[in-house]
Amino acid sequence: MKINGSNYKTIWFDSKNKVVKIIDQTLLPFEFKIVTLSSFESVAVAIKTMQVRGAPLIGATAAYGMYFASLLNNDFSFLIQKGNELKQTRPTAVNLAWAVERILKTIKNTKNNFSETILNECEKICLEDISNCERIGNYGLTIIKKIQQEKKLQTVNILTHCNAGWLATIDWGTATAPIYKAFQNNINVHVWVDETRPRNQGSSLTSYELNHEKIPNTIIADNTGGLLMQKGKIDLCIVGTDRVSANGDVANKIGTYLKALAAYDNNIPFYVALPSSTIDWKLNNGQDIPIEERGSEELHTVSGLDQNNILRKINIYPKESKSLNLAFDITPAKYITGFITEKGICDANTQSLQNMFL
Amino acid sequence: MKINGSNYKTIWFDSKNKVVKIIDQTLLPFEFKIVTLSSFESVAVAIKTMQVRGAPLIGATAAYGMYFASLLNNDFSFLIQKGNELKQTRPTAVNLAWAVERILKTIKNTKNNFSETILNECEKICLEDISNCERIGNYGLTIIKKIQQEKKLQTVNILTHCNAGWLATIDWGTATAPIYKAFQNNINVHVWVDETRPRNQGSSLTSYELNHEKIPNTIIADNTGGLLMQKGKIDLCIVGTDRVSANGDVANKIGTYLKALAAYDNNIPFYVALPSSTIDWKLNNGQDIPIEERGSEELHTVSGLDQNNILRKINIYPKESKSLNLAFDITPAKYITGFITEKGICDANTQSLQNMFL
Repeated sequence: MKINGSNYKTIWFDSKNKVVKIIDQTLLPFEFKIVTLSSFESVAVAIKTMQVRGAPLIGATAAYGMYFASLLNNDFSFLIQKGNELKQTRPTAVNLAWAVERILKTIKNTKNNFSETILNECEKICLEDISNCERIGNYGLTIIKKIQQEKKLQTVNILTHCNAGWLATIDWGTATAPIYKAFQNNINVHVWVDETRPRNQGSSLTSYELNHEKIPNTIIADNTGGLLMQKGKIDLCIVGTDRVSANGDVANKIGTYLKALAAYDNNIPFYVALPSSTIDWKLNNGQDIPIEERGSEELHTVSGLDQNNILRKINIYPKESKSLNLAFDITPAKYITGFITEKGICDANTQSLQNMFL
Repeated sequence: MKINGSNYKTIWFDSKNKVVKIIDQTLLPFEFKIVTLSSFESVAVAIKTMQVRGAPLIGATAAYGMYFASLLNNDFSFLIQKGNELKQTRPTAVNLAWAVERILKTIKNTKNNFSETILNECEKICLEDISNCERIGNYGLTIIKKIQQEKKLQTVNILTHCNAGWLATIDWGTATAPIYKAFQNNINVHVWVDETRPRNQGSSLTSYELNHEKIPNTIIADNTGGLLMQKGKIDLCIVGTDRVSANGDVANKIGTYLKALAAYDNNIPFYVALPSSTIDWKLNNGQDIPIEERGSEELHTVSGLDQNNILRKINIYPKESKSLNLAFDITPAKYITGFITEKGICDANTQSLQNMFL
């Protein structure tokens, strides 16, 4: 998608210089900076410090990390070890382990130099992710079209939470893909962007990427969605997910559950967009999904520009106050209207998921 | 209640200098500053800029505004006009209009100089508010005691949203009064404090005042309460309100509705604490309560201390992004377990409210 009018992916291989390029997402929305990753170490740091984030993008970046590792030592057991190191950088991101395993599986029976094979697989992972997201977009488009027609809407108002946008994937995004497809199909869409405390990925990333695609959007405090639903200002909710249990419960950014409850209370469709790799078939229900607790400094401190356009980090809480930073919550399947996946749209229950994917 | 070990009220009349003193709540938690109000204009500004906020405190401050107005012109129709000006400063809280009307009613049949009569009434309003809040505290205490006993709790975990603390009233608070009473009665309480974006009254005011009373509390992002309820970490919710319609619908700080939905979904009691002056008998239901829209800079900008302890205001959103700042939402009566009032506890419906107050 576009930034400042030019097309970008979140990650790409510079074949001339044999390096990987990423957008440093820790600097957004205040600075757009492309960073070069040219070693295994720099990949690990980029994932750990969240220069790249979003499960699919983390996976792709880790795959390139395996490429750099293979340049250090063309040895399978060395690569297993480096893969384990990568997995430690963000232990909860499912796609990270998935990507590492996929690379190892690809080279397992290769006798040649690994690096060329790994590089090909990295490209494949990226292309597949783009294709999956675009399919999600096309299936989601049918939902938006239907709502527009049934309610005879001038503008379809869509609420999303956090960033499940193209910046979380390679391109298109998951929750945003249907929005981009609708916009390209000349459907008037307007997006309510949940700010998404404490890290503000909604305002910093989702609103940023929608602005650059010229899609009308309005940032709201996370508290606001319920009232907007009561007032008829939201026609549809679409969010992403970090993990779906086999029964259709959804782990997603903290606060998702509250929006799903409000959507249910106001008869507003609440969809979750995901590639099927996000389904954890081993977990029977959402209560078993581990909830990541992150450092409380993410709550206490906020970054932004002062009146002289200087980036500053400030502490917004009373010094003595304690805080708790839980990163995800669980939305029970019964509050979810449906899943938008690369294979189509299905209901949020065991049977529907199995019918579609198993 | 206490700040730095000394007892304060939020507003008091300095009879020597004939001025009103308030705590400037826009500077908390970073600076504790007492501000002097010595004119009608300064009162209107204090309410509008939220140096004072919270429905009961706004009412009391407005009453003092009427006193200053009477010093300008001892004329009844002039005071009606000034009262109307005050009512425009904040549209949602009904206590503001209530206090203005009460002052006008008091002086309606007075032939003398109004100012002395108004000043007496201001003092009465403040004393009544303190007494009402303390009664709310005692009634609320019975709820906390009952939950502690029934669930055999070591610690009662209470969630509150925004600040309906003593800083929102003259003393004790509404939602916090039962908490203070419980603490004084040696019941272990722990308060989950919703940060309360965009103005962060939860972290800046509620956590601040609880800290100064040495009551254990933890700030959470507004997104977090639902998960904590799912995990059994919340035994009870108590919030305040800015206006209650005759059928028991509740206008309160934006985000209250989402917490009420989550409490309902998890069978957690959800109480609203209020003095009866907050009931608007003329409104049949909550949909008719006007919702204040405030400036979007309250969303875009945040204040806090940098690493050198210098107070800075920073802009946290992309420059091009729009935002919408709605200050209150409506919680339908059906999600409310009960009202804790100065006359006792009652159900959230027309009949129960009428039985208690009419």
